Amino acid sequence: MAGKVILLDFWPSMFGMRCRIALALKGIQYEYKEEDLRNKSDLLLQMNPIHKKIPVLVHDGKPVCESLIILHYIDETWPDKCPLLPSDPYQRAQARFWADYVDKKFYDLGRKVWTTKGEEQEMGKKELIGSIKLLEGELGDKPFFGGEKLGFVDIALVPFTTWFHAYEVCGSFSIEAQCPKLMAWTKRCLEIECVSKSLADPHKVCDFVLQLKKALGIE
Amino acid sequence: MAGKVILLDFWPSMFGMRCRIALALKGIQYEYKEEDLRNKSDLLLQMNPIHKKIPVLVHDGKPVCESLIILHYIDETWPDKCPLLPSDPYQRAQARFWADYVDKKFYDLGRKVWTTKGEEQEMGKKELIGSIKLLEGELGDKPFFGGEKLGFVDIALVPFTTWFHAYEVCGSFSIEAQCPKLMAWTKRCLEIECVSKSLADPHKVCDFVLQLKKALGIE
Repeated sequence: MAGKVILLDFWPSMFGMRCRIALALKGIQYEYKEEDLRNKSDLLLQMNPIHKKIPVLVHDGKPVCESLIILHYIDETWPDKCPLLPSDPYQRAQARFWADYVDKKFYDLGRKVWTTKGEEQEMGKKELIGSIKLLEGELGDKPFFGGEKLGFVDIALVPFTTWFHAYEVCGSFSIEAQCPKLMAWTKRCLEIECVSKSLADPHKVCDFVLQLKKALGIE
Repeated sequence: MAGKVILLDFWPSMFGMRCRIALALKGIQYEYKEEDLRNKSDLLLQMNPIHKKIPVLVHDGKPVCESLIILHYIDETWPDKCPLLPSDPYQRAQARFWADYVDKKFYDLGRKVWTTKGEEQEMGKKELIGSIKLLEGELGDKPFFGGEKLGFVDIALVPFTTWFHAYEVCGSFSIEAQCPKLMAWTKRCLEIECVSKSLADPHKVCDFVLQLKKALGIE
């Protein structure tokens, strides 16, 4: 498949990081365009007029939106190298289920941890740990959610770990101490260059979150 | 693919109806099991321990959850007859985008219309009409979202139309009058037997919603 590939993205975005990892794994050359979300580019508004959100993958001038849909698109457009989804329909359904679980839980729970205080925050922390524990159960003794190799669920989840430090600082708790199995998995993921080079620095994410709290008046 | 197929479902569920349509289109024999959501069966709790929700497709004893994931599973397990998704990766991404749009908007907006009053309800009505108008634009002059044939987006959307009468009664407004193009599309879908036999009766759905409002104390 020829054609220019552009990724409209924002560096701390978990959803953008997913696309960066998938493109790196597939060895796709692309132009990275950083968006200023307070002043969205005409290209972003034109390419994603419905949600006006990053990430957007623009391939040959045509946009693909929503990170898990972008992962499917990347996998189906460049199927030869590093399949992201397994080939068996049931295993594919399971991978989609857990990636969807990550989407349904982690963003909102993380947001609860860093934007609220008191009881609401405690609830957020408890539910976040509960969700991680559930995923640890699903991981079991496998090195990756994808089995022996990094797969769809690994790519969907690992970007969230770059926000864990910010959650810990804002929530005064330790995810690492309570979820050692997921932390060991994170380290395994980071040993893969396509992952480590695609992820934001957790300390920079934390600075970003603390600045955002200030800007939103929720110190 | 051999193996027994069971659908755990609840008759007014838009998400369940999607699975019924897909199974009917593919000509798959299955056992329909109606769930009492106030008293969930052990089978449901065992097959979907994470979300504890219908629909669940149980194939050869193994569960698949979440309606759009079930549609993918059905399409990938029985690929020969009536493909639900197009074959081109970009067209597949577009179909997934619009089905995801339906998921992100319609359930919550519909709920706003039938569970609230006053300004909140007015907002819900306005946004619901706006979302339908957007879909009418996407439909354009095609007979179906899938083109000449019913496809993934059609299957994702058409079950919601069985709730429109309830929304209209609860919100004292007419979706039909404002969205004639979507109504014409609905009629075209209902001419397909696999669709019409899989959908709930809008008047029964309306009775169900009115009873539910009473039970929830939001008359």
